[in-house]
Amino acid sequence: MAKPFELHPQLHADCHAMHSLAWCELLLHRNARVPWFILVPRATAGELHELRRDERIGVMDEADTVARFVLTYFGCQRVNRGTIGNRVPQLHVHVVGRWPGDPCWPDVVWGRLEAGSVYEPARLTSIAAALGRHLG
Amino acid sequence: MAKPFELHPQLHADCHAMHSLAWCELLLHRNARVPWFILVPRATAGELHELRRDERIGVMDEADTVARFVLTYFGCQRVNRGTIGNRVPQLHVHVVGRWPGDPCWPDVVWGRLEAGSVYEPARLTSIAAALGRHLG
Repeated sequence: MAKPFELHPQLHADCHAMHSLAWCELLLHRNARVPWFILVPRATAGELHELRRDERIGVMDEADTVARFVLTYFGCQRVNRGTIGNRVPQLHVHVVGRWPGDPCWPDVVWGRLEAGSVYEPARLTSIAAALGRHLG
Repeated sequence: MAKPFELHPQLHADCHAMHSLAWCELLLHRNARVPWFILVPRATAGELHELRRDERIGVMDEADTVARFVLTYFGCQRVNRGTIGNRVPQLHVHVVGRWPGDPCWPDVVWGRLEAGSVYEPARLTSIAAALGRHLG
């Protein structure tokens, strides 16, 4: 019997759960300074190239969908994507909305984004609802 | 008539040309502290989600191939991938070999990797030859 999917405790601590997509759990980082989504494939692979090809294609389709949402809903100008895993070994894909003048621009957010900004509950509810509409 | 592909001058300055793949130009960053490959799709899209789906799948297949090479040839333990584009707008995908104890571990390399280490010409020739064999 396959082991049930479990989110890494660090991702659980750092993020709000947003949606269960076909291939991934979609999270939103608690730091509200930039819209920072994280897709966690429900797979045992630790790296993108270890996914089955159909899994990887599905995960990347979902990352594209989230990227479009970040641009349209938050009005960002760029999307930064990263799959790093140096601190949290569970495979996860960052999709981060960026704009010139944001708190880290033009540097990356990883390891550089100051804490201290959080989402109000009502804001989270709005984002989740808009995401739901975007996802169809 | 489509405009011929032109590499962004910053990528040209920062990298060695390695191989022309089916979808991408494959570059190796001149900083030799970690094996840092960059794939540049021959497309006009500025973001991954702007690629046609078959293009994106092809680009990701090639990134997977390069990731496996980084692990086997350089003996790295992790692969960091990123598509950022905050400084260089031409779409490009970073595939970086990492290991605990490397010069930036566990931080990302972007904006943090000290300069001052370069590849000897003979080393570049060996890497290109091994890549050629890996690519088949």
